[in-house]
Amino acid sequence: MNKRIAVYRKEHFNAAHRLHSNLLNAEENASVFGKCNYPNFHGHNYELVVKVTGEIDPKTGYVIDLKLLGDIVKKEIIERFDHKNLNLDTLEFKDLNPTAENIAIVIHQLLSNKLDKRYDLKIILYETERNFVEFPA
Amino acid sequence: MNKRIAVYRKEHFNAAHRLHSNLLNAEENASVFGKCNYPNFHGHNYELVVKVTGEIDPKTGYVIDLKLLGDIVKKEIIERFDHKNLNLDTLEFKDLNPTAENIAIVIHQLLSNKLDKRYDLKIILYETERNFVEFPA
Amino acid sequence: MNKRIAVYRKEHFNAAHRLHSNLLNAEENASVFGKCNYPNFHGHNYELVVKVTGEIDPKTGYVIDLKLLGDIVKKEIIERFDHKNLNLDTLEFKDLNPTAENIAIVIHQLLSNKLDKRYDLKIILYETERNFVEFPA
Amino acid sequence: MNKRIAVYRKEHFNAAHRLHSNLLNAEENASVFGKCNYPNFHGHNYELVVKVTGEIDPKTGYVIDLKLLGDIVKKEIIERFDHKNLNLDTLEFKDLNPTAENIAIVIHQLLSNKLDKRYDLKIILYETERNFVEFPA
Amino acid sequence: MNKRIAVYRKEHFNAAHRLHSNLLNAEENASVFGKCNYPNFHGHNYELVVKVTGEIDPKTGYVIDLKLLGDIVKKEIIERFDHKNLNLDTLEFKDLNPTAENIAIVIHQLLSNKLDKRYDLKIILYETERNFVEFPA
Amino acid sequence: MNKRIAVYRKEHFNAAHRLHSNLLNAEENASVFGKCNYPNFHGHNYELVVKVTGEIDPKTGYVIDLKLLGDIVKKEIIERFDHKNLNLDTLEFKDLNPTAENIAIVIHQLLSNKLDKRYDLKIILYETERNFVEFPA
Repeated sequence: MNKRIAVYRKEHFNAAHRLHSNLLNAEENASVFGKCNYPNFHGHNYELVVKVTGEIDPKTGYVIDLKLLGDIVKKEIIERFDHKNLNLDTLEFKDLNPTAENIAIVIHQLLSNKLDKRYDLKIILYETERNFVEFPA
Repeated sequence: MNKRIAVYRKEHFNAAHRLHSNLLNAEENASVFGKCNYPNFHGHNYELVVKVTGEIDPKTGYVIDLKLLGDIVKKEIIERFDHKNLNLDTLEFKDLNPTAENIAIVIHQLLSNKLDKRYDLKIILYETERNFVEFPA
Repeated sequence: MNKRIAVYRKEHFNAAHRLHSNLLNAEENASVFGKCNYPNFHGHNYELVVKVTGEIDPKTGYVIDLKLLGDIVKKEIIERFDHKNLNLDTLEFKDLNPTAENIAIVIHQLLSNKLDKRYDLKIILYETERNFVEFPA
Repeated sequence: MNKRIAVYRKEHFNAAHRLHSNLLNAEENASVFGKCNYPNFHGHNYELVVKVTGEIDPKTGYVIDLKLLGDIVKKEIIERFDHKNLNLDTLEFKDLNPTAENIAIVIHQLLSNKLDKRYDLKIILYETERNFVEFPA
Repeated sequence: MNKRIAVYRKEHFNAAHRLHSNLLNAEENASVFGKCNYPNFHGHNYELVVKVTGEIDPKTGYVIDLKLLGDIVKKEIIERFDHKNLNLDTLEFKDLNPTAENIAIVIHQLLSNKLDKRYDLKIILYETERNFVEFPA
Repeated sequence: MNKRIAVYRKEHFNAAHRLHSNLLNAEENASVFGKCNYPNFHGHNYELVVKVTGEIDPKTGYVIDLKLLGDIVKKEIIERFDHKNLNLDTLEFKDLNPTAENIAIVIHQLLSNKLDKRYDLKIILYETERNFVEFPA
C-alpha cells in the first residue's frame, strides 16, 4: 500500500487574452501570433486538470481529499482568472505572454505554494479541445 | 424518399465578449450580469451546430453537401467572429448585447441569407459545455 | 425578436437506486429488471439537462438568467437527490420505481412549480452515456 | 402519467464506404463527392442513437426496456453493418449511395419493422463528431 | 520494432458505494467524507481505462489483442462490480474503504494475476468526469 | 523557465483498413483478427494526438507554434491517410499490418523526420473511443 498513486481534479474558467510578447516588436508579434495577436482580445473556456501524486493515507483511503483540492483550485486559480482579461486584469500576465504554456507554469507555481511538499504536482491545461499543454512534462 | 430529414454540421470559434446592455444603467448591468459584466472582457470557445432540414436529392443522396455547408459557415460566421472581441470588433454586437441568445439569432440571420429557401435552419450554440441555446426553439 | 428560443443548463448528481415496482411480484421484478433489481442497489452519475423555452427579454438579451436557473436546479433537484439513495432517502421514490423515465417526470414537476408559466420546460436526463430520456417528448 | 416521453439508446458500428451514385457519371461523382468518392473506400466509427417515444407502462416505469431495445439494435443493425463494407457487403446499399442520410433512413426502416406501432421512432446517426443526421426531422 | 508501446482499453460499470473507514469513528467518518458517508449509499458510472505496455508481436502487429483484453476485464472486473453495492456485495471492499484510489489498486491486483508478466499494467479509473485516479502513478 | 513542458495537438482522419498479416496464413488471420479480417475492409474515424516536449522559447512563450505543428501534421499525415484505404492506397501499409500500434509507429517516424531533434515526440492514436495506443510508451 506504499506505492504512489495519482489523483486528478478537473475545473474550468473562462478568460479573455491576447498573445503579445514584450520581447518582440509589433511586426514580429503579428507574424508569430497571427490572429491570436489581434489587439482587442479573444477568449477561451480553459479546462484545467490538476494531478497530485502521493501515497494513500491508510486511515482514509485518500491521497488527498479531492473536494479540498477542488476548493484550493477554486480559491487560488478560478477566482483569480475566471471571467478576467489575463493581460489587463492579472498581475501574473502583466509582463508575461499568456500562452497556454505560461499559464500552466503560473498555475503550477500558485498551487505548489499551497500543497504539502510530499505531493508531486502536474498541470494539464486545455486552451481548446485540440490544443493543450502539460507541465512538467 | 420525400420525407424531410435533418443534417448537422459542427464548427467552432473563440471570441472575447462582455455582457452589457445599453438599456440598463451601470448598476443594473453589474447586478444582472455579475462577473460577465467585468469591463475588460472574458471569452469562450463557442461550439456552433448548424441544423439544415430538407428533402434528400435522389441523385446524390444528400440534403445538402455538408462540406459546402461547412464552407458557408466558415466564410459567413467563423471568419467574422473567430479570435474577435464581439463587443468591439463586430458591427453586429456594436449595439446588441452578445448573450448566447443574441449571438444565435444573429448567426441564424446571417446564414439564412445564404441558404436556399427550401431549407429550414436551426442554430445550436454552446457558450460552455453547461450553457447552450437553440434558435428557433 | 419575439420568436421563441430555447436555453439549456447542464447539472449533475450522483445517486444510488434499485429498480423495483410495487405492482410486480419478486419474480416479475427480477425478470423485468435483471441486475438493475439487485437488492443492495447500484448507482449512476446522472447528467441533467434543463431546457427552458421563451422569448428574449430585450432589456437583457436573456430568456432566463442561466445562473439563476442553475441555482434553482441546485436548490430543488441537486440538494434533494445528490449522494442519496433514491429508493430509501427520498419521498418522491418511496412508492415510485426510480426509472430514468420516472425521475425525469418528477424533476419536471419539481421545476415547473418554481418557473414562471410563460416558459416551456423540458427535461433531458442521462442515466448513462448510452441510456437517456426526454420529457415531454 | 399518460403524457408521452422519449427514451434514447446509443450503439456504434465501424464500417467502410464510398460515396458513389448510379445516377451520376464518373466525372459528376468525383466532382460532387470529392475524396469521399475515392475508389478504394474509407471508413467511419458510426455512432447510432435510437429515439423511441411512447407512454410509460405504469407497472414497470419503462417506455420500453432499453436493454431489449439495445438487443434489437444489435441484432438488426450492428450485426448487419459492423466491420462491413457498406457498398460491397450489404444488400441495402448495393444500389443506394451510402450517405449518412440514406443510412439513417435504412436503419429507420429496419427498426420500424421490429417495433410495436404504438412507438414513434427517430434515428440520429453520427458519421463523424462534426457531421450527423436525424430522420425523420 | 523492439521499442515498447502502450495500448488502452476502456470499459465501464455502475455501482453503489459509501465512503466509510473502519479506522475512523462515526464522527470522523462524517467529517472526512461528508455526503459521501451518507448511510444509504450513492453511486457512480465508473469509467475504467486499462493500459498495457509491451512490445509488438511482429507476426500480428498487436501488443495484446484488445478484444481479448476486454474479455478479461469483463470477466474479472465488470462481472464482479457492475450493478453491485461495493460495500455490501463484494469481498474486496468488505473491510476496505471503496475510495477511487482503493478501487484502482484492487482492479490492478485482480488484472495483474491474469496478465503475462512481460506486460506493464496501469489502471485509470474515473469516478466522475471531474475526479479520477491512476495507479501506479 | 528551463524545465521541459509538453504541448499537444489533436487532428483526425477517416480511413478504411483490414487487419491481415503476411506472416500468418488465411486461417490464422481469420482466427486472430476475427471480423477485423473481413476481406472488403471496414473503417474508422482516427483521432490523432501529437505530443511534443521541449523547453519554452522565452521570446514567444511557445514550445512550438501549435498552428505550425498542426500544419505539419496535416501535410505529412492527414493528406497521406485521410479518406484512404490504408492497405491498398498507402506505401506504408503495403506489407505492414495496419493495426493501431503499427499506424502509431509509422506516424511517429513520419513526424520525427520533420521536427527539430531538440523535441521529444509521442503519438497517441484513438482507433475508437474505447481502443487507443501510445508510442513510445
